[in-house]
Amino acid sequence: MFQTFETVTRPADGPPRLAALRAQMAGLALDGFLVPRADAHQGEYVAPRDDRLAWLTGFTGSAGFAAVLQARAGVFIDGRYRVQVRQQIAPEAFEPVHWPETQLADWLRQALPDGGVVGFDPWLHTFEQIDTLLKGLENSGITLSETDNLIDRIWPDQPAPPHGLIVPHPDDLAGEPHLHKRQRLAGQLRKAGQKAAVLTLPDSIAWLLNIRGSDIPRNPVPHGFAILSADARVTLFTDPAKCNDALRAHLGDDVTLRPAEAFEAALRSQTGTVRVDRASAPFRVTGLLNEAGVDMEWGQDPCILPKACKNPVEIDGSIKAHLRDGAALVEFLFWLDTTLPGGRLTEIDVVTELEVCRQATGRLRDISFDTIAGSGPHGAIVHYRVSAASNRAIRDGDLLLIDSGGQYRDGTTDITRTVAVGAVGDEEKHCFTRVLQGMIAMSRARFPKGVAGRDLDALARYPLWLAGQDYDHGTGHGVGSYLCVHEGPQRLSRVSDVVLQPGMILSNEPGYYREGAFGIRIENLIVVQEAPPVAGGDDRSMLSFRTLTLAPIDLRLVSADLLSRDERAWLNAYHARVARELSSLLSSGARDWLERVTRPL
Amino acid sequence: MFQTFETVTRPADGPPRLAALRAQMAGLALDGFLVPRADAHQGEYVAPRDDRLAWLTGFTGSAGFAAVLQARAGVFIDGRYRVQVRQQIAPEAFEPVHWPETQLADWLRQALPDGGVVGFDPWLHTFEQIDTLLKGLENSGITLSETDNLIDRIWPDQPAPPHGLIVPHPDDLAGEPHLHKRQRLAGQLRKAGQKAAVLTLPDSIAWLLNIRGSDIPRNPVPHGFAILSADARVTLFTDPAKCNDALRAHLGDDVTLRPAEAFEAALRSQTGTVRVDRASAPFRVTGLLNEAGVDMEWGQDPCILPKACKNPVEIDGSIKAHLRDGAALVEFLFWLDTTLPGGRLTEIDVVTELEVCRQATGRLRDISFDTIAGSGPHGAIVHYRVSAASNRAIRDGDLLLIDSGGQYRDGTTDITRTVAVGAVGDEEKHCFTRVLQGMIAMSRARFPKGVAGRDLDALARYPLWLAGQDYDHGTGHGVGSYLCVHEGPQRLSRVSDVVLQPGMILSNEPGYYREGAFGIRIENLIVVQEAPPVAGGDDRSMLSFRTLTLAPIDLRLVSADLLSRDERAWLNAYHARVARELSSLLSSGARDWLERVTRPL
Repeated sequence: MFQTFETVTRPADGPPRLAALRAQMAGLALDGFLVPRADAHQGEYVAPRDDRLAWLTGFTGSAGFAAVLQARAGVFIDGRYRVQVRQQIAPEAFEPVHWPETQLADWLRQALPDGGVVGFDPWLHTFEQIDTLLKGLENSGITLSETDNLIDRIWPDQPAPPHGLIVPHPDDLAGEPHLHKRQRLAGQLRKAGQKAAVLTLPDSIAWLLNIRGSDIPRNPVPHGFAILSADARVTLFTDPAKCNDALRAHLGDDVTLRPAEAFEAALRSQTGTVRVDRASAPFRVTGLLNEAGVDMEWGQDPCILPKACKNPVEIDGSIKAHLRDGAALVEFLFWLDTTLPGGRLTEIDVVTELEVCRQATGRLRDISFDTIAGSGPHGAIVHYRVSAASNRAIRDGDLLLIDSGGQYRDGTTDITRTVAVGAVGDEEKHCFTRVLQGMIAMSRARFPKGVAGRDLDALARYPLWLAGQDYDHGTGHGVGSYLCVHEGPQRLSRVSDVVLQPGMILSNEPGYYREGAFGIRIENLIVVQEAPPVAGGDDRSMLSFRTLTLAPIDLRLVSADLLSRDERAWLNAYHARVARELSSLLSSGARDWLERVTRPL
Repeated sequence: MFQTFETVTRPADGPPRLAALRAQMAGLALDGFLVPRADAHQGEYVAPRDDRLAWLTGFTGSAGFAAVLQARAGVFIDGRYRVQVRQQIAPEAFEPVHWPETQLADWLRQALPDGGVVGFDPWLHTFEQIDTLLKGLENSGITLSETDNLIDRIWPDQPAPPHGLIVPHPDDLAGEPHLHKRQRLAGQLRKAGQKAAVLTLPDSIAWLLNIRGSDIPRNPVPHGFAILSADARVTLFTDPAKCNDALRAHLGDDVTLRPAEAFEAALRSQTGTVRVDRASAPFRVTGLLNEAGVDMEWGQDPCILPKACKNPVEIDGSIKAHLRDGAALVEFLFWLDTTLPGGRLTEIDVVTELEVCRQATGRLRDISFDTIAGSGPHGAIVHYRVSAASNRAIRDGDLLLIDSGGQYRDGTTDITRTVAVGAVGDEEKHCFTRVLQGMIAMSRARFPKGVAGRDLDALARYPLWLAGQDYDHGTGHGVGSYLCVHEGPQRLSRVSDVVLQPGMILSNEPGYYREGAFGIRIENLIVVQEAPPVAGGDDRSMLSFRTLTLAPIDLRLVSADLLSRDERAWLNAYHARVARELSSLLSSGARDWLERVTRPL
């Protein structure tokens, strides 16, 4: 099993660790110290040694940070984690702070006197974060001070850094040799008059060099930094223990391997104009370049946009991964449907069986994130992750929301289905149908070039809006190609101005949540494509989505009379496609079951 | 008749006037001179004396500018005017330039040598326009030079400035005494640490002081400038001939009237921080403040947002205006329906009769813009305005698009209906139905607070998009309250980030245009309101639209089988409302006709 169900932190561990940290702060005459969840690579997952926030506070969420002062310690968390944080921290030692409603600078201004000094590890905060904080502290008399990491000083059994083997991601999956990618991006640097770009995001480096790693869970990326030169050469800074001859052969002579420790010196020795991404580069990186007098130019990490636009080989890989994953899903849903009645299953049983079904493909490298299996009221917790302590027996009348995904070498999947357990109420069915209508509207969308996710987001919400309902998350996020399941820059969201381009893979996942009662989400992955011509259409080139995810949608939850003719036609055509494409990959029991549950409405 | 059908300019007048202008330029050692369509107030309409662009070039469109050099003269026009400009200018003297595809700075760089000097009248260009131009000319060696207006030197029979009487707009129509408005805005200035705000937009001044004027066609505003002080006093700079005792009594002691000539000295004598809107203030205003050492702070004209959010009295007025205007429209449509068959009518006949019907209300102060009546292929010209030269006989099989509006003291209207003439093709009906579906989707929308026009625009396009079709204009614009029919800041458009707020009036006008064949547009005005509660909805406060416009939609153009049940229900309910609310205001013939054409589908 990739997923575990233990509660790994204990609130009681927090206070003594906090005391030890404060002793370190006192020794350095610091009035405060910042402990972010992030590591130097700003990803969603961190290695055990980098899980400093959880070690100190007990809070295990995927985003947040602590600001520790001598008398107070705030744990800053967003709306997703307001309930969870209270269960995980020692209330006498830590106070939860609602972020971004309360900004760190304002909290510090209120808690610290003029002259206060706050320490931070400059590798763990981006330039942009520190810049925003400094602006917020202007005229407050409070200053920031770069230090080494004080948690690392006091964590006696801190795990060693990860050293997962780095493996080539072959051209027949990547679709473009790393030489071409390097040349393509180097051309952009030359055009911008830049001699080099600093890369600090592991998935950017993994994409550029066609490599994969295993340093952190769920995201198959190696930890490391890299410098791409305008001559298309790359220097990769990473632990030599992670590199073998096969990797060296794959990288070739234009890619130089250096130990991670050499990164600082390499930054110092840059000449000419160097591109740095202020949104992701550690503050320390910009500090080193500044100290060395290097001419920095802010610019987006050059890998981000080309990585987002999947090439035909990657899309073909994703289609194959979705066939495999869809078949595993159907085996799982078949098992669920036949095993659920009678109330013998718990949420952990569901998560376990789903992983077993994916493992049975023989191709699963990891799950793409911890499976969310929320029954009844747990479904309304958008990022619910079951533990032994929270585990709940699934009962007749529940909705069961299952959001999960797999990492395969040819593609990353992410799918949510919500199923009825026994007889469920009409209200649940009506809400489910509206969520489905939104999901269908986005699936069917055609749109002119130049449109961003923001321009489409309302299409998925409109049926809920008409009923006075909504959901408090975006409609979709970008998805990587055997990389991170949450990948930028594209999103289907009111906050995304990024123009949609062919090859971008997105999730399409409207939902509806009634606190204390039930949660609904239906999610397919979709890929942006040139829209096929339509009879009578204008002579304007448009884009559309192709649905990648193949798995039945629970018709027991659909109020068919709420659907328009077009919506019904889409659903029937989708189900016919699911049955047609998956049938040959299934056990005979699952095949018969799929035939039944995909009957036309 | 407010509207005229003459072609007022002649291409042949251009070349000698151009020669006279060039002689003036030579006398001042200028290599170029800019002639914008705008006056100092940047509105859509200008007084005859300010119509310098049309006088010089012959081009009468509502937006554009000329850049005159010694050897070349470019007339910069946007996509709407590419055809019209070629009919109106002398091709041997002027060259049309596609703007914004070609930016002025780039054109000047290409046409002028290093050292070139371009003159401009600093009253007719905003700070932002000149700032953008200067940035575009950086390192080109081309410089700008402020001059007096060279057109005014060579225009022998230039009309005098307008001096329309300024009249009070009474509290029972404005809904808020100007004292309250001044105090409200003054409080904002004090909060921002500003001593005053400079107002240069006539509709801002008209709104703030509850006055209306008649200096320009279509927009009932007086020309003038104003300074609002943080103590809530206002100085209004305008021609004293436009002011009578009734106005003085209305304005009271806190509003000082000064001649327009006193504006410059008043700017020079400002002290403290003064708010200036860089998007609308003439460059000369910012120059005078700079010269006087006044501390300028950029900020939006403080009237713009409160003016956009109509108060209950203004909304009530708009409802009344729309009842009156709707009844006039029905009389017109009844006439049209009974008179059209046989092909005896022209577009001018249609425009004339529509104005007659509005005049018959006894309350029409002006039309709110020149009526667009485009039959057959003319319907595809989005801003078509019929002239004696372009006038076309309306034929069986045509679509006839009529976009028009009235200015009443209680409200401004703007409505588009597209009607079938005789038997029209299925293709036209299908396109009309899709446009109607988009219009209905926007009309029915409910949405959370915080949403901008950009977030909703796609709702109106989705049915067209699915058919591979679209329209190249926004879905809606703001509308004033007995003010300008095009009013900011809100829009339903992919370019609008302005958050929608209760009381904002918008047009909802999707369309579809097939060049050389037909045009379709259906337009109602809608007002943003707190959404009425909906059974089963969440406890979240949402907004919705109330439709203001009342007039039948031509059911002969609706393919009923394309409509969903909800769309059909909306259309039937709208038609029932139109019949119910207008019936008592109609002649008996029109009443019977309306009864017939609003029958449920």
